[in-house]
Amino acid sequence: MRIDIITVLPELLKSPFEASILKRAIEADLVEVHFHNLRDYTTDNYKTIDDYQFGGGAGMVMLIEPIDKCISKLKSQRHYDEVIYMTPDGETLNQGIANTLSLKENIIILCGHYKGVDQRVRDMFVTKEISIGDYVLSGGELGAAVLCDAVIRLIPGVLGNETSALTDSFQDNLLAPPIYTRPRDYNGHKVPEVLFSGNFPKIEKWREEQAYKRTKERRPDLLDE
Amino acid sequence: MRIDIITVLPELLKSPFEASILKRAIEADLVEVHFHNLRDYTTDNYKTIDDYQFGGGAGMVMLIEPIDKCISKLKSQRHYDEVIYMTPDGETLNQGIANTLSLKENIIILCGHYKGVDQRVRDMFVTKEISIGDYVLSGGELGAAVLCDAVIRLIPGVLGNETSALTDSFQDNLLAPPIYTRPRDYNGHKVPEVLFSGNFPKIEKWREEQAYKRTKERRPDLLDE
Repeated sequence: MRIDIITVLPELLKSPFEASILKRAIEADLVEVHFHNLRDYTTDNYKTIDDYQFGGGAGMVMLIEPIDKCISKLKSQRHYDEVIYMTPDGETLNQGIANTLSLKENIIILCGHYKGVDQRVRDMFVTKEISIGDYVLSGGELGAAVLCDAVIRLIPGVLGNETSALTDSFQDNLLAPPIYTRPRDYNGHKVPEVLFSGNFPKIEKWREEQAYKRTKERRPDLLDE
Repeated sequence: MRIDIITVLPELLKSPFEASILKRAIEADLVEVHFHNLRDYTTDNYKTIDDYQFGGGAGMVMLIEPIDKCISKLKSQRHYDEVIYMTPDGETLNQGIANTLSLKENIIILCGHYKGVDQRVRDMFVTKEISIGDYVLSGGELGAAVLCDAVIRLIPGVLGNETSALTDSFQDNLLAPPIYTRPRDYNGHKVPEVLFSGNFPKIEKWREEQAYKRTKERRPDLLDE
C-alpha cells in the first residue's frame, strides 16, 4: 500500500510515523508513506498557499492551484484508488471504513488547514471526504495521522499477533471486555477469580458477558446496528 | 491551563506539539503541556510497563503500578480537575466536551497502548474516559494529540482571530458552508456570483442556506439534536 499525504505542515506529521507500529510497518515495506509539502507546488515568490475568502469572513482558504498541481503530478505517476480530504463535514470514520481502505493500493490524503480548501478542490479532485469525529481541529494533519494509524495496523503482518486486531473494540460491534494483568492483588483491589480458573470456555463466556454489559451501558447504539 | 500526558511513547507525540497552533499556544504561555514517560516510573531493571493478560488472550496489558506512581506524584504537586483515559470504549469526543475541557485548570491524559491498561487503573484513578471515534488505533497517543488540539485551540487568545472558532462546523450544530478564494474562475470552474455582490446580509443568508443544505444532506442527525 502507498499513501501520499499532501500538507502545508509536513513537520507536524513527522513523529507519529517515526514511532511504534507505523514505523515498523514502513520499515517492513508493508506500506509506503510520502509527504508532499504544498509550498513546493506554488508558483509565486512568497510560496502562497492560502488567501482571504470571497464574500468576507474570518479565516484563510487554501488555494486550488498548488493542490491541483500536486495531485496532477501524483496522478501522472500512478493510479490512485481514492483522493481523500480530511474535513469535519466528511463521512465519519469508523472501523468499517478503515477495513475497506486497508485493502486499497494507492491513496492520496489531502490535509485541510486554516478554514479549509477552496470548494472547487472538493468538487473537482476529491473522491472521498472523511472526518475523524464531531470536533474541529486546527488542521487535517492529525486526522490524516489517525486515519493512517487506523488503516495501516489492519494490513496483514503489521501487528505482531494477527488475532490482536480481531479482538479489538468495534470489530464485532461490541466494546472490549475488561482486561487485567499482574499483580493479582493490588492494595486490596483484586482481579476477578474466573480469570484464574483455567477453564477457558468459562473465561470466554465471562468476557462475552462483560463485553455485552459494557456495550449496553456505554454504547447501546452499537447493539442496534 | 496545564496538561500532563502519561505515555509509553513520548517521542510519538513530539512533532504535533512543535508545530502550528499548539506550538504557538505553548510559546505564548496559554497552555503548558508536559510528557511523562511511564518507563521512568518502573521499579525493575527491565523497565517493564506491560505484561500478559490474566485468563489468556492476545495482546499485552499495561501494569497498574507505574501508572499509579506517576499519577500519585502529579497529584501530590497540584489538584487535577480530570484524569482522562484515552480508550475506544470511552465517551465519544465532540465539540461540547472540547468546550467544557477548555475551561479546566489542570488535566492528566493517560494514553493506553497495546491492549490497554489494567481495568483497576480505570476503576481507581480515571475520572473520565474519552474516545476520539469508533475505530481502533495502535495507542492512545494520537488520540491525546487530537484531544489537546481540539481543546487548546478553544482557549481564548490561541487562535489569531477569535471569531474563527465560532464559525467552525459543530459550534451551532451545522456544518460549515462552502468557501472560496482566488481565482474567481479556475479553468472554467467559477465561484458563486453572490459572493461578489457586496451585499453582506445576502451573503450571510446564502451561507446559512448552504450550511443547512449540507448538514441535511450529510449529517441529518445533527439537526435532530
